[in-house]
Amino acid sequence: MERIFAEYLIETPYEVEKATAVLAGEQSSGTFVAVPGETDELKQRFAARVENIELLDLKDEPSIPGTAIAGKKYQQAKVKVSWSIENFGYNLPVLVSTLQGNLYEITQFTGLKLLDFEVPDSYQKHFSGPKFGIKGSKASTGVAGRPMIGTIIKPSVGLSPQDTAALVKTLLNAGIDFIKDDELMGSTANSLFDDRVKAIMPEIRKHEDKTGKKAMYAFNISDELDEMQRKYDLILSEKGSCAMISINSVGLSATKKICDKGALAIHAHRNGWGMLNRHPLLGIEFPAYQKIWRLAGVDQLHVNGIQNKFWESDDSVVRSIQSCLKPFLNLKPLLPVVSSGQWGGQAFETYRRTQTTDLLYMAGGGILAHPMGAKAGVIALHQAWDSAVKGLSLEETASLHPEFMASVKKFGK
Amino acid sequence: MERIFAEYLIETPYEVEKATAVLAGEQSSGTFVAVPGETDELKQRFAARVENIELLDLKDEPSIPGTAIAGKKYQQAKVKVSWSIENFGYNLPVLVSTLQGNLYEITQFTGLKLLDFEVPDSYQKHFSGPKFGIKGSKASTGVAGRPMIGTIIKPSVGLSPQDTAALVKTLLNAGIDFIKDDELMGSTANSLFDDRVKAIMPEIRKHEDKTGKKAMYAFNISDELDEMQRKYDLILSEKGSCAMISINSVGLSATKKICDKGALAIHAHRNGWGMLNRHPLLGIEFPAYQKIWRLAGVDQLHVNGIQNKFWESDDSVVRSIQSCLKPFLNLKPLLPVVSSGQWGGQAFETYRRTQTTDLLYMAGGGILAHPMGAKAGVIALHQAWDSAVKGLSLEETASLHPEFMASVKKFGK
Repeated sequence: MERIFAEYLIETPYEVEKATAVLAGEQSSGTFVAVPGETDELKQRFAARVENIELLDLKDEPSIPGTAIAGKKYQQAKVKVSWSIENFGYNLPVLVSTLQGNLYEITQFTGLKLLDFEVPDSYQKHFSGPKFGIKGSKASTGVAGRPMIGTIIKPSVGLSPQDTAALVKTLLNAGIDFIKDDELMGSTANSLFDDRVKAIMPEIRKHEDKTGKKAMYAFNISDELDEMQRKYDLILSEKGSCAMISINSVGLSATKKICDKGALAIHAHRNGWGMLNRHPLLGIEFPAYQKIWRLAGVDQLHVNGIQNKFWESDDSVVRSIQSCLKPFLNLKPLLPVVSSGQWGGQAFETYRRTQTTDLLYMAGGGILAHPMGAKAGVIALHQAWDSAVKGLSLEETASLHPEFMASVKKFGK
Repeated sequence: MERIFAEYLIETPYEVEKATAVLAGEQSSGTFVAVPGETDELKQRFAARVENIELLDLKDEPSIPGTAIAGKKYQQAKVKVSWSIENFGYNLPVLVSTLQGNLYEITQFTGLKLLDFEVPDSYQKHFSGPKFGIKGSKASTGVAGRPMIGTIIKPSVGLSPQDTAALVKTLLNAGIDFIKDDELMGSTANSLFDDRVKAIMPEIRKHEDKTGKKAMYAFNISDELDEMQRKYDLILSEKGSCAMISINSVGLSATKKICDKGALAIHAHRNGWGMLNRHPLLGIEFPAYQKIWRLAGVDQLHVNGIQNKFWESDDSVVRSIQSCLKPFLNLKPLLPVVSSGQWGGQAFETYRRTQTTDLLYMAGGGILAHPMGAKAGVIALHQAWDSAVKGLSLEETASLHPEFMASVKKFGK
């Protein structure tokens, strides 16, 4: 029978074998005392199985505060556990409840993080994954051989639909590929969602008529389900090509329902991610996270950026980009959305470390606050990426291109 | 203009005032550099406002590992921030993205936890909250003057629908008020959801015909949205009264959509909660969490239990119970679901500290593994609660009642 495998980083003051057995028990039979009916045959068929244990460091202090036991040391380990596919069928929320669920509550662990998981090939029959992914997103905007260049409407909250549309027009004329609402922007008092779509989409259509290029605008449809569906249909009727969802706030089942509609690329914003990931021994790592959302069918997923303004390390960002691009079943790869304090200067290191232009590279202030204007801001980003791919350095690029030079002067450290 | 207030526990190596201003900035304008269009008028209307700062302890080490700065101390503080209702309207996912969202990513914080939030009374017009809550759940099962006594089908995964129905029959004859599927149990190879409902509900109906008492069975409908709706309708057509949702796995928008149907009590399982709460300086505290889900409209919410088998302290459990019962707008209070290693012995401390019987008190092994059988297991729980309310001690209760005495011998420490 096919099995699902999950890998965890754990920490425990107890024997790792015993603690891992508790993990496996909690996530299959799950009670504190033997009960009638729990036959050996039933256990054999449905119980979680500990597949592998790899001991790592021994620590003096527990990773989660308040869990110290006098005189104990804390063993870290990578453990692999598996379940029969018979336990789940093809039910994503139940899969998540099993892979994560009550595990974080177990006293035996002073740290537990889901690193990655594997599902059998039969999942392909039940999950079609991203409808657009990288190729679809790039084709839709006519981008080839370089990252899609995107930006965020700033200020995030407060502009009227008319002001936003005027800004969109500026950005379109500047040559932008992609624009998005901020995740804080749903439908505010002075920018109702419908008004915003109806003000922005004519600008995008006009620009397409004039130039043949259709920019993608990710309208933030995050909301209750019926409203998300209505907003989705409005975008479609206005000939838009993308909707944005704050996936952690909206949740898995509603996001999947929207993805299943299949007519718009889904831009997945991962705000709330820090809560799930920031502690090294608690939560979930990105390689597992992106698989859950790839199964749900989102097309574009935020990965933070190199030298970002947030806490995340470059190593972690690089690994996130790589995991979006890595094959998973026969599902399309996800378009990694690189953002947070990006202005082009990070293109060199981003390319050096990932060797890919299959990215949506988002610059907010880096475009709109460019000293020579938004058009120069977009051009500077093209210059940065073009040079990065050619192997030029930041300094060489700045000496060749005044637009990029202006970026370096304003945004570089 | 009405405002929404949020209270955070934070930790920072920087000046608290400055770090909190970054928090407020990130969650309103949100870029690393000033951009055109961010006028003073717009800021005044939409910017987050720091309302209060209360300094707490100064720490030598950062709460989130890997964030230490040489020579710095880490100031903990409670801070209160507010936003105008104009920023959100009545959009729950956008509210969550603002209250939580990117805040956890901010470098300036070495710890951040959402403690609580307040929404204005106008939210009452847009959110009807729990349809059943405590009164509706108790009325549906004919329980008064004591907690509802519930249990979980164990083993969690593996029993056939017929075996499960036979177990349900035993539990009904034992006088149980409430039974639930395990959160790991959706639709397994040998217990398809539909078969399970169709095997269990006739037992519940037969028992009701015979005794006039209708027990509540929480079928785990956690799944993709269409399947949840189909499963919900099946439960309804079989005259069931409750559906269970793993709220963290299913997510907010789909859960709200199901709650809005309004015909079944919604049993909210919070598996995954440890990931959101276990670290004292990361994530969300229960008083805020229960408000989000009360707005979404769930009726019953897990709170763990006193002297539980998991990591959570009794103080935290007591506070969770209290926050479910506490008024919030004009929404019905939530029925706190007390579980995890409960067998009746904890009734005394639970009642002493909460002074309420408005609980769903869940005992798994405590009933099914009772040495005198399931009926004695349920009777022992009634004895425990009856005595706890009368102010008797565990020892006094055991000396009066052989069923409870047997529980003490088997399950007591």
